[in-house]
Amino acid sequence: MNISLTTGKSISVAKGESILNALKRHEIYLVSSCGGKGTCGKCRVRILDGKYKTTVTGKLSQSDRDKGIVLACQTFPEQDIAIEILEGSKLVVGDKIALAKSKDLSELFKSLDGEIALVVKRLELELPPPTIEDHISDLERLKRELDIRGIKGMRFSHGFLSSMSDAMRNYDWKINLAYVDGPEAIFVSAGKDIARCGLAVDIGTTTIVIYIIDLSDGKLIDVGSTYNSQIRYGDDVITRIIYATESNGLNELREAVVEDINSLIETVLEKHHIQRECIESAVIAGNTTMSHIFWGLDPKHIREEPYIPTANFFPMWRAGTAKLYINNQAPVYTLPCVASYVGGDIVSGMLASKMHRNPEIALFMDIGTNGEIAVGNKEWLITAACSAGPCFEGSGIKHGMRATEGAIEAIKIDPKTFEPSLSVIGNTTPTGICGSGMIDAISEMFLTGVVDQKGKFVREIKTDRLREGDEGFEYVFYKGNKDIVLTEVDIENIMRAKAAVYAGISLLIKEVGFGLESIERIYIAGGFGNYLNVDKAIILGMIPDLPKEKFRFLGNASITGTYLCLLSEKLRKEAEEIAKKMTYMELSVSRNFMDEYMSALFLPHTNIGLFPSVEKLLK
Amino acid sequence: MNISLTTGKSISVAKGESILNALKRHEIYLVSSCGGKGTCGKCRVRILDGKYKTTVTGKLSQSDRDKGIVLACQTFPEQDIAIEILEGSKLVVGDKIALAKSKDLSELFKSLDGEIALVVKRLELELPPPTIEDHISDLERLKRELDIRGIKGMRFSHGFLSSMSDAMRNYDWKINLAYVDGPEAIFVSAGKDIARCGLAVDIGTTTIVIYIIDLSDGKLIDVGSTYNSQIRYGDDVITRIIYATESNGLNELREAVVEDINSLIETVLEKHHIQRECIESAVIAGNTTMSHIFWGLDPKHIREEPYIPTANFFPMWRAGTAKLYINNQAPVYTLPCVASYVGGDIVSGMLASKMHRNPEIALFMDIGTNGEIAVGNKEWLITAACSAGPCFEGSGIKHGMRATEGAIEAIKIDPKTFEPSLSVIGNTTPTGICGSGMIDAISEMFLTGVVDQKGKFVREIKTDRLREGDEGFEYVFYKGNKDIVLTEVDIENIMRAKAAVYAGISLLIKEVGFGLESIERIYIAGGFGNYLNVDKAIILGMIPDLPKEKFRFLGNASITGTYLCLLSEKLRKEAEEIAKKMTYMELSVSRNFMDEYMSALFLPHTNIGLFPSVEKLLK
Repeated sequence: MNISLTTGKSISVAKGESILNALKRHEIYLVSSCGGKGTCGKCRVRILDGKYKTTVTGKLSQSDRDKGIVLACQTFPEQDIAIEILEGSKLVVGDKIALAKSKDLSELFKSLDGEIALVVKRLELELPPPTIEDHISDLERLKRELDIRGIKGMRFSHGFLSSMSDAMRNYDWKINLAYVDGPEAIFVSAGKDIARCGLAVDIGTTTIVIYIIDLSDGKLIDVGSTYNSQIRYGDDVITRIIYATESNGLNELREAVVEDINSLIETVLEKHHIQRECIESAVIAGNTTMSHIFWGLDPKHIREEPYIPTANFFPMWRAGTAKLYINNQAPVYTLPCVASYVGGDIVSGMLASKMHRNPEIALFMDIGTNGEIAVGNKEWLITAACSAGPCFEGSGIKHGMRATEGAIEAIKIDPKTFEPSLSVIGNTTPTGICGSGMIDAISEMFLTGVVDQKGKFVREIKTDRLREGDEGFEYVFYKGNKDIVLTEVDIENIMRAKAAVYAGISLLIKEVGFGLESIERIYIAGGFGNYLNVDKAIILGMIPDLPKEKFRFLGNASITGTYLCLLSEKLRKEAEEIAKKMTYMELSVSRNFMDEYMSALFLPHTNIGLFPSVEKLLK
Repeated sequence: MNISLTTGKSISVAKGESILNALKRHEIYLVSSCGGKGTCGKCRVRILDGKYKTTVTGKLSQSDRDKGIVLACQTFPEQDIAIEILEGSKLVVGDKIALAKSKDLSELFKSLDGEIALVVKRLELELPPPTIEDHISDLERLKRELDIRGIKGMRFSHGFLSSMSDAMRNYDWKINLAYVDGPEAIFVSAGKDIARCGLAVDIGTTTIVIYIIDLSDGKLIDVGSTYNSQIRYGDDVITRIIYATESNGLNELREAVVEDINSLIETVLEKHHIQRECIESAVIAGNTTMSHIFWGLDPKHIREEPYIPTANFFPMWRAGTAKLYINNQAPVYTLPCVASYVGGDIVSGMLASKMHRNPEIALFMDIGTNGEIAVGNKEWLITAACSAGPCFEGSGIKHGMRATEGAIEAIKIDPKTFEPSLSVIGNTTPTGICGSGMIDAISEMFLTGVVDQKGKFVREIKTDRLREGDEGFEYVFYKGNKDIVLTEVDIENIMRAKAAVYAGISLLIKEVGFGLESIERIYIAGGFGNYLNVDKAIILGMIPDLPKEKFRFLGNASITGTYLCLLSEKLRKEAEEIAKKMTYMELSVSRNFMDEYMSALFLPHTNIGLFPSVEKLLK
């Protein structure tokens, strides 16, 4: 029997085998934090066609079941079957594009004069086994050996003691003592050491990415990514903060993200036959809210004026306390945040950009679920959050979606017929429009006169692409079983977002007494940054009208920064220096920001003079 | 309606009120770690008479139910009722004898030139509240204030961060920072401080005792005691170590003792309206096995040659990790152990005895469930465990019981009629014989010729008190519904125990090159020690034949030592010095010990010359 997927791929499934298992055998991984017991309710798929047996669990609502949604671990095909893997259910492990970047990572690390300097140190010890005469306890035996070597003041925790005695005996008293600065003993491993690996995590509001790294040489062993399951509690950080203040909300949010990370870790470790205990160190980056939730800290004060996080600089903690599925005693480092809306992901990304080391003035932008910007060089750094909102990731846009298969990612409109030509991710039937598609759409509509400077449809134009829908006027990009449109309300939302970004950049550069023209380099980070058409974004008026060669795309710079911090304590310190050095501007309370924002609510801007290249194009 | 108790006491109970509640209203506390939900199965009572309604739960076996045993929290009298509180179910709170000792404790503390020097320090801080301009995070705000005061390198844990932000706001930024040496911040409390209390715990193999102390003046607020629920897994440490190695055994044992301690704490705190958070510090003492189980450390190596504990000196840990029902961040100090069978309870007791400070040679004995002895003075200390076994606490003796109500605690035998006269605890019908009763019994039987030098019954004597029972010859001390006897097998067990104690003392003093006559002081510690008749114990040959005025009874010296350590960091150091200074002798592998032991298996000893006072008595 076969299971056919919406991607066109078809995989075999044995009689009595669950869909989850069949997919796993073909290296298609779903989120299944319960390990396939039907209790986490995460491996959701929709049955499009075919007969199957399934166990109904409380984890699916009636409306889910009406739609043909089942849990893959509880569902057993009885004949050929066609399924759709639901967006939030998929783990991506072994992403080829990311793995191809492995060499770039090593080179970046080298270019930062990076010498591997791990946070977990090792001390090879051979202890005399206990006898009736030499009957001191295991811990005192270890301390005596440390004394002989002149190592003073080592601290020992409950977690260390719990596993120490068995390990000493298992390794026949020839051991490696793993410790961190303090010094604090963290665990005992075999004298001849096994693999030493590390975990790097980027907790995005929408997406979670992990790297598993070989710490001996910095090689990327594998990557994994998935949607942040917190999405079910709201798309943006504000909704999640509100949810966190409800009875058990904070715990639920924390568990959701930890289970996502653990599912990814487990899948990668299983694939590569790496033991959990070998992951001896972890580095995590996320925006301030994600970092707080990961830490189990109530984020409520982040949302209320004067917007104060509990911490920006987090202490080191242990994987066991954090409940990460790696060595329980592994130290977990959290990239420092700057303020309530500029987090460790930005600090991590800036470290990866190296802009804090260069004399040239650079602009760093990360337009993901939130929008953060920073300007500066090796002398100074200033940053702000511009609350662009999650519309570029599809939220709040009628047919908006993330940049995955089926998303319209690029658009061209014929200036005479007003007919669009589309580029769809995966070259398949379009199912929505993603951020870069939205930017293309509006700038093309503007250039061809479908919308005016205010983003309103020019109703006089002759085309049946423009029509009146349920929610007012809309432009139809695709006609099919399900039309794909952009409504005037959608455009308004996108205009607000782009105005917030532009106003933020503009105000930040003015704040330090420079003009936009002094920006010598623009780094675009974030998943979104990978697909951004700079020309179109300039026409939209989202980013300053600067020469194309000044732009650099960093992709997910946050995970790159965590990779760097995993390998080098020196680079951790450097990240901390960045966080300390950054001046944070609270735009939400600035009257100048409102002025800038209002001026930016046009295509490309009230003052067209700021966009000479667009002005030229319009002529 | 009334509930009548086996003590003769009668208390009122309202309609619809559970037995548990009625008892609590009258300050009779049962173990109920689930808080009366019927899930912990600990508040067991036996219904002797009367009608009641009860909910049957899986926590009671059929055989329990057949005996009329119910859970007090699930049982509601419908008319006057008579009950028996089962031994393991009872919490004793507010023990009058212990509370009367409060003044002695203060005086002892003073006599050790004790100045209160708490482990938890306080720093009064007033932080400027955050504003839009001064928007650093809560943690950085705290660090800035510490910087201003020149306090460097304070560490912060996840536990601290979790509660810090709310506390700062609740106390309007006028706070007290509680910290321990390191320095490490542990919690934030109100600027104007509330009560500061401490918890002292003695974890005995059989009994658990807690003290709640006012840390401002060292006053004993209340005491609580109960049986160690681990008893259900075995009477002695060896059985428990074996149980700990079974699948979930270690966890069960740990949970049992922690729930006992928490039940006591909760009851005392409720009675005195003290908030959990006010208990800011704890000190625990127990033998090495009890300490390991409390720490969740597998005790298996304690039992196997060469008998190695995981640790003798335990790091400080947090109440939250230890799962104690006090302030989660409270540091929990464990009295150091000396070796596998000489634990923190002995170190604690010796601290309370002050023998380590004096020039005179002293003998310290703690004959509880195990038997530990130590000899020494301010120059040197030597110690051993003599595996006396738990027979003096009733275990392994046909009608043996602990020294509670109904126990025969003293015996006199008429040398002519061989009729005994008994003294029973609580002046009630005897239900068994406790340790001091056993010692009296054998020495009286020996003096009156009922048993010979080997502890065998002299069958020729004329009395119906001596009879042949199911298990061979036995002497009947009490005739009633249930006769109370001591069998020849019982006497053999007691002889083995006393021989082990005497041989241990004898060997220890020889080991340091002295004779028994050089012992200038004997400290008798342990619950058992309270009731010991020295003359009789000498006749039995359990303790050396020394003048009566050299003996001092310390009662539970272990809890006294924890009290001292709770109030003074200096005395903790002193306890550590004691533990370090003590030389441990492993008797179980010593051939000399076997010789001494064999010689001591007589009444009072093979060499009667060692017991001149007994020799005189026999003539």
